[in-house]
Amino acid sequence: MPMYKAPLEDINFVLNDVLNAQSLTQLPGFEDATPDLVQSVLEEAAKLCENVLQPINRSGHEEGCHYENGVVRTPKGFKEAYDLYKEGGWQGMAFDPEYGGQGLPHTIGFVLEELMCSSNMAFAMYPGLTHGAMNAIRAHASEELKAQYLPKMVSSEWSGTMCLTEPHCGTDLGLMKTKAVPSDDGSYRITGTKIFISAGEHDLTSNIIHLVLAKLPDGPPGIKGVSLFLVPKFLPNENNEPGVRNGVMCGSIEHKMGIMANATCVMNFDDAKGWLVGEPHKGMRAMFTMMNAARLGVGMQGLGVASVAYQNAVVYAKDRLQGRALSGTKAPDKVADPIIVHPDVRKNLMQGKAFIEGARALGYWVGMMIDLVEKHPDPVARQEADDFVALLTPVIKAYFTDMGYEIATNSQQMYGGHGYIREWGMEQFVRDARIAMIYEGANGIQALDLVGRKMPQNLGRLLRRFFHPMQAELEQSQEDAALLEFVIPLAKAFGKLQQATAVVAQKGMSRPEEAGAASTDYLRIFGLVSVGWMWLKMVKVAREKLAEGTDGKDSFYDGKIKTARFFVEKMLPEVDFRFKSLMSGAKSMMDLDAEQF
Amino acid sequence: MPMYKAPLEDINFVLNDVLNAQSLTQLPGFEDATPDLVQSVLEEAAKLCENVLQPINRSGHEEGCHYENGVVRTPKGFKEAYDLYKEGGWQGMAFDPEYGGQGLPHTIGFVLEELMCSSNMAFAMYPGLTHGAMNAIRAHASEELKAQYLPKMVSSEWSGTMCLTEPHCGTDLGLMKTKAVPSDDGSYRITGTKIFISAGEHDLTSNIIHLVLAKLPDGPPGIKGVSLFLVPKFLPNENNEPGVRNGVMCGSIEHKMGIMANATCVMNFDDAKGWLVGEPHKGMRAMFTMMNAARLGVGMQGLGVASVAYQNAVVYAKDRLQGRALSGTKAPDKVADPIIVHPDVRKNLMQGKAFIEGARALGYWVGMMIDLVEKHPDPVARQEADDFVALLTPVIKAYFTDMGYEIATNSQQMYGGHGYIREWGMEQFVRDARIAMIYEGANGIQALDLVGRKMPQNLGRLLRRFFHPMQAELEQSQEDAALLEFVIPLAKAFGKLQQATAVVAQKGMSRPEEAGAASTDYLRIFGLVSVGWMWLKMVKVAREKLAEGTDGKDSFYDGKIKTARFFVEKMLPEVDFRFKSLMSGAKSMMDLDAEQF
Repeated sequence: MPMYKAPLEDINFVLNDVLNAQSLTQLPGFEDATPDLVQSVLEEAAKLCENVLQPINRSGHEEGCHYENGVVRTPKGFKEAYDLYKEGGWQGMAFDPEYGGQGLPHTIGFVLEELMCSSNMAFAMYPGLTHGAMNAIRAHASEELKAQYLPKMVSSEWSGTMCLTEPHCGTDLGLMKTKAVPSDDGSYRITGTKIFISAGEHDLTSNIIHLVLAKLPDGPPGIKGVSLFLVPKFLPNENNEPGVRNGVMCGSIEHKMGIMANATCVMNFDDAKGWLVGEPHKGMRAMFTMMNAARLGVGMQGLGVASVAYQNAVVYAKDRLQGRALSGTKAPDKVADPIIVHPDVRKNLMQGKAFIEGARALGYWVGMMIDLVEKHPDPVARQEADDFVALLTPVIKAYFTDMGYEIATNSQQMYGGHGYIREWGMEQFVRDARIAMIYEGANGIQALDLVGRKMPQNLGRLLRRFFHPMQAELEQSQEDAALLEFVIPLAKAFGKLQQATAVVAQKGMSRPEEAGAASTDYLRIFGLVSVGWMWLKMVKVAREKLAEGTDGKDSFYDGKIKTARFFVEKMLPEVDFRFKSLMSGAKSMMDLDAEQF
Repeated sequence: MPMYKAPLEDINFVLNDVLNAQSLTQLPGFEDATPDLVQSVLEEAAKLCENVLQPINRSGHEEGCHYENGVVRTPKGFKEAYDLYKEGGWQGMAFDPEYGGQGLPHTIGFVLEELMCSSNMAFAMYPGLTHGAMNAIRAHASEELKAQYLPKMVSSEWSGTMCLTEPHCGTDLGLMKTKAVPSDDGSYRITGTKIFISAGEHDLTSNIIHLVLAKLPDGPPGIKGVSLFLVPKFLPNENNEPGVRNGVMCGSIEHKMGIMANATCVMNFDDAKGWLVGEPHKGMRAMFTMMNAARLGVGMQGLGVASVAYQNAVVYAKDRLQGRALSGTKAPDKVADPIIVHPDVRKNLMQGKAFIEGARALGYWVGMMIDLVEKHPDPVARQEADDFVALLTPVIKAYFTDMGYEIATNSQQMYGGHGYIREWGMEQFVRDARIAMIYEGANGIQALDLVGRKMPQNLGRLLRRFFHPMQAELEQSQEDAALLEFVIPLAKAFGKLQQATAVVAQKGMSRPEEAGAASTDYLRIFGLVSVGWMWLKMVKVAREKLAEGTDGKDSFYDGKIKTARFFVEKMLPEVDFRFKSLMSGAKSMMDLDAEQF
């Protein structure tokens, strides 16, 4: 059975030493979010994840959800775990106090997301979807709807969903068929079928609030005619308790590769009563509020699964005795050495460590930027932060989830044949991690978002939010000779990123196909350079700490420097490969006729 | 439901045009293996795979094997399919006629392996294991054992297994505990527990012949004290029919990530009667006969799964309508364009095509070399072929299976959310492909075999069997200006492979850790360069054919040239990445103390 220990030491390092998250206390509303408070919140979160969610992760995978006559039963222990989650007030931790939230920074929400996905990704999706729905309601719904629904969702009493996909359309939502017809009382009647609705039906909450994309009769064709509606499973009665059953029903649940404990539902809306959220035909805009947050959340899922898979790979590599070290016996008292002595085993583990710790810093940094977007008094600072978040959202979604799957696979590999056996739990990580590359916009779509939308936006303004400070940090860092081993390769990779940007921007203007062809290579380069930047920051902090004296934590900081070295020597060179591939252009992939495949 | 069509056109191209497989008819015993005969055998094989094995692939995945009281039941339809396989005489197709085989070239056996693994990998493993056992018996057992067991196995009446792994030892078989005690009648009594025994128990055959590694009482410690034994499930009676039940019993079957329809058994040997195969304490040598063939077979599994996954990705990419081409609408009569118009979709498909077709050529080439090893009258030619096979075995095992998993994953990605749903069948390919990276020596072990065993062997003689002809072909090809776009990048990659070889060989002598640290990067470079070489050969043939006139097959040959271009532009540059990583040496992966992970 896999174990999980929330990596609080590393999390505190990132928050306090690297990102200076205590600066958030200067923002209005975050005055109380001191490192001490954050620390105690995270300790409680760790307990929930380690003691409540992790122990039902594998059993949930084995049992799965069960469907009968429209009713979905979650696996054993999920309801009890959800009740503890609810009692802890976790759903509202980083949400507006006006609706019952605790108003802590989103940064801490990002940490919680990571820990929950490490311990039980399928469980984490239930409150995760609610969170997305809460955000969209708060940003776009009327005051009445907000007052009626948000407190119930913040308290975990009711949960939420996002209903976008239909059988014939996922990426291309303009093809949507679900219809909304206005009623006289200002509400609407929704009819249609939605598929792949995570947490669409379950037994954890007394009501489920669906946010549904549908077309109004007078809407323009395609994506511009899509509106967003709030459709509760039960219509609230005068006491705002679940009343009459609405015309929404789960038709079936999918049998999937993973996230077995999360119900993926076919939802049938049959003249269901709903209310418009936001303006008519502006549903996609409202949906993107939900989706952008959800995409970052999915990126954190990739990180979370990588983290727990890596932890278990390390445990096994220290424990499993097999063969002798090539440099001579290391454990003469044992029948063989633990496999962690073998270089290739270490390479595998180092890859996990170098990705996870670098991605953690990058992910939390974006979390902090969201806090700035919401709270910073200066509109310029808010805009800058928003640009940064918008730019990095596709990178975090796609790069983190591609790597999540890769690290989960590599960690499973450590176990040899045992990794393939369900009982050992490693195969679950791979199967769970796989979905994160697909949903909330498949990773290829993220890459298109990066090159097609984020790159050209405001004449490259978003890119400058990243390039300028990174350039400045590289220049400043190169003055310290001890940093050169990191700065030089990183500066080269950064140069390639800039060059690739120029080429894609230029080619893409005359032939959009060229941008599309470059997109996944470009996103990967962006991910590698971003994480590399984090490693430079972390090395600098580690060196300072070691110079100042670390209170017995030398080994921790020393490990950071060594891991950074591994990253630049063994992982960052992937930029060379992707760059060369990107520079060769679209021709070789567009040349074949469809019949030649 | 996935489809499968045996890619006979491409197979014939590889066999007849690229590898000149008709030259095999000049070897004694293969006189009849003309292209016509091979063609008709392959057409029959395609029918079996498309019509019998493929239709029970997904149902086998869903149903899995069932265990009760030592008895294993295979999924519905497996017994009937096995009977058809048996009737077709497929088990003996490439086996010695002396024991009832048809004596066709191993090359054709490689093709059959690919087709069977494309259509039903879990099924293919049953005869695959038998094949491995047959090889070991033929090479090492006494004449009596051969006469008694081989005809029954060749006819598919009895099946075989390989029993190596124990709970505490997989890679490091020297730790083995299973014991063999000599009896007065020349037989032995075997006691111990083996795990992960594929096809260890099932209902397809009337007897199962286990080849079991065990230690004799007087054996030296470690791997040098291991001997190989033949242990039948039922002891043959005087008519050579299954008689008394032997002391071997399946204790349980594993619940796995994939290959659900193949029983992975815990086998308990309790004073079971067995016979020595080969010399005492030389069990590993005999086992390697089995294992080397099995490793190549596993490589072909990777190719086979990649091939079927790719085929289904292509079908979906042509069928699924979503979005419009960036270069302008392609299907104005439809609500959207098929996704194959999108560059990144094509990149995904091209990667599959470029790997699969290149790997197919390389795999079959190694198959041909095995035929030379067995049949060539000239001992020098035999030795040369044997060197080539030995060198490429770890490359084919590891590179093909890593890529098999990658292509299966990429192909699943094409399906968006549907790819994650079991019903669509794409997730099975990923789950089945995963095991091939683990069993028959995990891929990290293959890489060690390449750098630690194959590279230094006979002062680099094996490497020269690869380097010299490739060098010659590059030199000869560079005289044709039209080939330069392929020759130049390939020559550069080849140069890096040679340079990496020199560095690893030199560093590895003083610090074996350095060779271990370089091993997986090195193997990957080797795989990329080998497949690149195949693409050069294929381009040359395609150009000749186009010049000669192709009988209406211009599009096929044109596709070859374009796919080669994709390979050198988009895939071969990975060599740069791996080379840079390799050259940075072992330090960054060895530096961390175990506690720092």
